[in-house]
Amino acid sequence: MGVGAVKSKRMPRAVREQQMLDAAVLTFARRGYRAASMDEIAEVAGVSKPLVYLYLNSKEELFSAVIRRESAALAEAVRAAVEPDAPADRQLWSGLKGFFAHTAEHPDGWAVLHQQARTQGEPFAVEVAAMRAEIVEFVTAMIGAAAQEAGCGREPAAREVSGLAHALVGAAESLADWANGRDGGAVPGERPSAKETAATLMNFAWAGLGRLMDGERWSPGG
Amino acid sequence: MGVGAVKSKRMPRAVREQQMLDAAVLTFARRGYRAASMDEIAEVAGVSKPLVYLYLNSKEELFSAVIRRESAALAEAVRAAVEPDAPADRQLWSGLKGFFAHTAEHPDGWAVLHQQARTQGEPFAVEVAAMRAEIVEFVTAMIGAAAQEAGCGREPAAREVSGLAHALVGAAESLADWANGRDGGAVPGERPSAKETAATLMNFAWAGLGRLMDGERWSPGG
Repeated sequence: MGVGAVKSKRMPRAVREQQMLDAAVLTFARRGYRAASMDEIAEVAGVSKPLVYLYLNSKEELFSAVIRRESAALAEAVRAAVEPDAPADRQLWSGLKGFFAHTAEHPDGWAVLHQQARTQGEPFAVEVAAMRAEIVEFVTAMIGAAAQEAGCGREPAAREVSGLAHALVGAAESLADWANGRDGGAVPGERPSAKETAATLMNFAWAGLGRLMDGERWSPGG
Repeated sequence: MGVGAVKSKRMPRAVREQQMLDAAVLTFARRGYRAASMDEIAEVAGVSKPLVYLYLNSKEELFSAVIRRESAALAEAVRAAVEPDAPADRQLWSGLKGFFAHTAEHPDGWAVLHQQARTQGEPFAVEVAAMRAEIVEFVTAMIGAAAQEAGCGREPAAREVSGLAHALVGAAESLADWANGRDGGAVPGERPSAKETAATLMNFAWAGLGRLMDGERWSPGG
């Protein structure tokens, strides 16, 4: 037991830091950024408060580190899910499945990014905005590629493609909250699977984009 | 001048309160809830700070009053825009035009509701969530009615209708930010009109819903 105890006390700094970040994600998601205390974060992590300060400096820096880690993990999950050489519709489908699988598996991380970080002012909002911009850019490229693949029909203007990408990303964010049971979403036990949520949005978006690219428009006179 | 000066000093309380709320919306939107000071709000309103406290009690109550007023105004703008006896697609179209016209005309009010209020904890988040739930309910009824009107084809399940409504509302929120120049949105002078933004979402949503109701599905094998 002696050796084991020594080993666990000499846990590498990187491992301890990840435990603190795990505890911080959970605490920030449940209490909100302002109400979350370093005492509670240290307690959840099972370490002393001075150690949290030693490793992460301040609540602000801890929150920044959480945002960076959770943003990078979400972006990486989407990137890894996408089949890069597939047609645009399959790329979007696999990206959406990756997005909803990750947000369902990491509801606290998603809540910190979407509910907390965006509105706590600088520098937090900027970091989340950068990740969101990256995802919007990816979706914009997707829609552009899909329009080219469709070939015939009306190609949407650049501003409309940008608008459609923002609509799709906003829809995905709202659906992630809904699938996680927020905002009047599904109750536990009846929550849709990540694949089902992705299919709802894919059917909605792809059918709509498909009609748009075929030149079909909704008309107020109809 | 004497009478005029006396009159302006005896401005009815209701009018003065609206001026304070106007100043608060502007200040909360630009500084954020935490950083906004009662000093600045009083200065923007052109009244003394004690008068703001006399009328609105505290920064918390002032923020609540702002949220209630801006929520009610947005919900009322959408309600007034909808043609109640029109077919579902026209109701959605007129509701979207009303929504984007109001958010474009009141960018600070929209920023307070969407960027600030949702994440400042209780009781603010609850008030905004109630308004959002009302709008989601309206859209859910719309999609349900549209499915019935479409008659033939596959009627979507209740959970899918709920998911579609959340997707549509999230898309509208994201597009309102984009149209107002937030989140990498359009630069001033090149911003889309409210009607154009509504048309982008309407075409996207309606075409997609139309295909869904005709029983068309996107298939991963395609």
